[in-house]
Amino acid sequence: MKQANIGVIGVAPMGSNLALNIESRGYTVAVWNRTGSKTKRFVQKNAGKNLIATYSLQDLVKTIKKPRNIVMMIKAGKPTDIVINNLIPLLDKGDTLIDGGNTPFKDTIARNKKLDKSGINFIGMGVSGGTSGARFGPALMPGGQYSAYKNIKPILDKIAAKTPDGRPTEIYCGPNGAGHYVKMVHNGIEYADEELIGETYTILRHLCGLDVDKIAAIFKKWNKGELDSYLIDIFANLLAKKDKKGTPVIDIILDEAENKGTGKWSSEDALNLGVPQSIITEAVYARFVSMLKEERAAAKKVLNGPSKDEMVKPTADVVENCRKALYFGKVISYAQGFEQLRFASKYYNWNYHFDQIAVDWEAGCIIRAKLLQPIEQAFKKNPKLPNLLLDPYFAGVANKYQDAARKISALAMRNGVAIPCFSSAVSYFDEYRTPLSPNAACIQMMRDTFGDHGVFFRNDIHRQGTRLHLSDLENSDK
Amino acid sequence: MKQANIGVIGVAPMGSNLALNIESRGYTVAVWNRTGSKTKRFVQKNAGKNLIATYSLQDLVKTIKKPRNIVMMIKAGKPTDIVINNLIPLLDKGDTLIDGGNTPFKDTIARNKKLDKSGINFIGMGVSGGTSGARFGPALMPGGQYSAYKNIKPILDKIAAKTPDGRPTEIYCGPNGAGHYVKMVHNGIEYADEELIGETYTILRHLCGLDVDKIAAIFKKWNKGELDSYLIDIFANLLAKKDKKGTPVIDIILDEAENKGTGKWSSEDALNLGVPQSIITEAVYARFVSMLKEERAAAKKVLNGPSKDEMVKPTADVVENCRKALYFGKVISYAQGFEQLRFASKYYNWNYHFDQIAVDWEAGCIIRAKLLQPIEQAFKKNPKLPNLLLDPYFAGVANKYQDAARKISALAMRNGVAIPCFSSAVSYFDEYRTPLSPNAACIQMMRDTFGDHGVFFRNDIHRQGTRLHLSDLENSDK
Repeated sequence: MKQANIGVIGVAPMGSNLALNIESRGYTVAVWNRTGSKTKRFVQKNAGKNLIATYSLQDLVKTIKKPRNIVMMIKAGKPTDIVINNLIPLLDKGDTLIDGGNTPFKDTIARNKKLDKSGINFIGMGVSGGTSGARFGPALMPGGQYSAYKNIKPILDKIAAKTPDGRPTEIYCGPNGAGHYVKMVHNGIEYADEELIGETYTILRHLCGLDVDKIAAIFKKWNKGELDSYLIDIFANLLAKKDKKGTPVIDIILDEAENKGTGKWSSEDALNLGVPQSIITEAVYARFVSMLKEERAAAKKVLNGPSKDEMVKPTADVVENCRKALYFGKVISYAQGFEQLRFASKYYNWNYHFDQIAVDWEAGCIIRAKLLQPIEQAFKKNPKLPNLLLDPYFAGVANKYQDAARKISALAMRNGVAIPCFSSAVSYFDEYRTPLSPNAACIQMMRDTFGDHGVFFRNDIHRQGTRLHLSDLENSDK
Repeated sequence: MKQANIGVIGVAPMGSNLALNIESRGYTVAVWNRTGSKTKRFVQKNAGKNLIATYSLQDLVKTIKKPRNIVMMIKAGKPTDIVINNLIPLLDKGDTLIDGGNTPFKDTIARNKKLDKSGINFIGMGVSGGTSGARFGPALMPGGQYSAYKNIKPILDKIAAKTPDGRPTEIYCGPNGAGHYVKMVHNGIEYADEELIGETYTILRHLCGLDVDKIAAIFKKWNKGELDSYLIDIFANLLAKKDKKGTPVIDIILDEAENKGTGKWSSEDALNLGVPQSIITEAVYARFVSMLKEERAAAKKVLNGPSKDEMVKPTADVVENCRKALYFGKVISYAQGFEQLRFASKYYNWNYHFDQIAVDWEAGCIIRAKLLQPIEQAFKKNPKLPNLLLDPYFAGVANKYQDAARKISALAMRNGVAIPCFSSAVSYFDEYRTPLSPNAACIQMMRDTFGDHGVFFRNDIHRQGTRLHLSDLENSDK
């Protein structure tokens, strides 16, 4: 009987494309799907390729060379648990299950622990790049037992995308849930990127009055510079699409931005860790508001825009400021994303290598962008860098582009264009560069009054020494 | 043996003050504390009052008239579970345990379910107003079995604060975790209120250059109008406090705004429910940034402020715009808070009465404010109001004050003052009043391209009928 090098469970678009990718690199792949007819159809459609259809998990397991590697590309949640529970009695010690789904990292931590008791390795692997990425080169973010990772690394290296200088975009993220966490933050950053692009577009179209083709050309041009990225590339292309009547697709498409959860999971864990993650979270909330379509229609009838509608002349200056504001927002958003990874690395004991995570995102994934290269450099120079904004390159960018971001944000706010992510980026920048925050002092002063009977810590001696009592103070008002 | 009407567990500041409050209304109160010496000291200190010291849970239970009501004012989490588990075998069917701590509502749901199996009622009760509120009139937010609530209602009515027109600030919120949820959102709104006050102060002080006494006088004046509230009142008073050298306390106090979790719990559940809650969440993140004090000091060395520092002349106009912006921010924040309660009421089956929740917050609690009265009216007129901004009064306020909020926000952003909550309020307002969101269309257009193979929903037929395929579209660029 012909033996397979690896098994793939699930032949939906992601699974079938990943199986074909692996096969194309010289491996024999055993596939199994809950619905056998789908397995059959998939293998028949790809006749001549080194794919082995199996019709039971027993068959699948028997067909794969030991120690076995089996990649699950199925729905996260219960379906994954069912397959795992059915597989446990069939697998041998030293075998490895790889979950390539969009699984919450806490589930991955729990499954890794559970399977480890039976001597079975469990890798939670983020897979980004959509179906075409899965077929021709995704970014892979595996986390789990290191020995199990080493065993499958040769395959991952071959199927992953390659950075512009030829490195595979797959790195060992760390133990248990470390890989799915990196994927979660990747997706959170994706939310922020998309929202920032949307805000920029809205300003150019509805505040500056540029037509869609003009804006498409602007984004296309931007994509040749430091904004070069997958999302800007596809956005520029999509803007140019029109239906048969000549109406741009952007004017036809339903304005409800859905979500599959990863963005809000990022925000939830940022809240849990105590790390500021305002841009991703604003992007998540912006999508939530978009889903309140009936309320928005009702609101339009009773809520007005600003009294004075300036139409802004789209001079070269204004357009260039939009570009700078977009890059500024992106930089701040990645700074927050990597700060979250730093907090998580410490809290969950994952020992992340941030420069390697940047490499992993340089190609194949949805947030691939030129920007990842200076991020890689920043963490290579200083692996303990607390925040990208403290790196000379990014401090320089932020310092140089802040005025543009301020101007564009102020313009949008005055004129009724919602910019939750732009403004959040500017405010974070201003909070972060303030060594003595009057704002925080106000809050703590009120909290200490009703919560702690008027006992304050002093800022000159931080948390040491005598505290200050309200009763020690004079009231200038008396 | 003398019998008590009610028991109180825990004689730390909140518990002891609540016990004294109950006693002062003509009840006999049995008290117990894990450390017996503290119970003894408390009762001795209050000799002559109808307090009964007990030194075991058995004693406590025996001392209380049936059906028993016992209020726990102890640390949330494990300590609460330990006391509950020790009490279960001692209580009779029909007795009621009331948890007055700051407990996550999901714990309350679980405990209510668990105790219900033994026939014991469990009420999770939010208590707000600090220690002085506990002593002289807190706002109470009980949730649990309705019959158990009815039984203790006469006591709650007497100990609660009273609204300006004499109604007690205690309402039945709903079953199981409904009360602790209301308290959680109350605290979230408190975060937002405090941050908005802090942002306003920072603008007046550091952008307009007003001195602290002047600002104290401004807040004092504001507190006589529609901004009238507990927090503005204490803030104005605190601003006037100085140390012996004449330095204002606001310039001495440590600028790290701590948190005990309720704010982030609000945000976490908003994310879970899919309801936009950007202002509370920005306030939570602002506190997180304040805790990164070392990073902020490092950032100051490499990050600059805006290139051009306008100092703004604090004309009467600018000051009045600050007042309007603050009220605008407050209104939007309460609108988001009540929208979260609406989502939660549906999701958790709580059947909230929003006008009653407003009454509950009109006195006694930290967020008590004149603003709660029009909120009560709005929900009385329309119990199904989806969002406060759709009520004529609040639509009117928002329409009238938006220009001020826009101006102040733009001013702050241009000049380096962080205003995460002000700007978030303006952006939410602008998103909410937009029936066709170009921004959301952009996001969905990108998502559909890599996630759904270029299949779009159309905005003209919403989610019905044929979807649009990328392949049907022309590329104007070709």
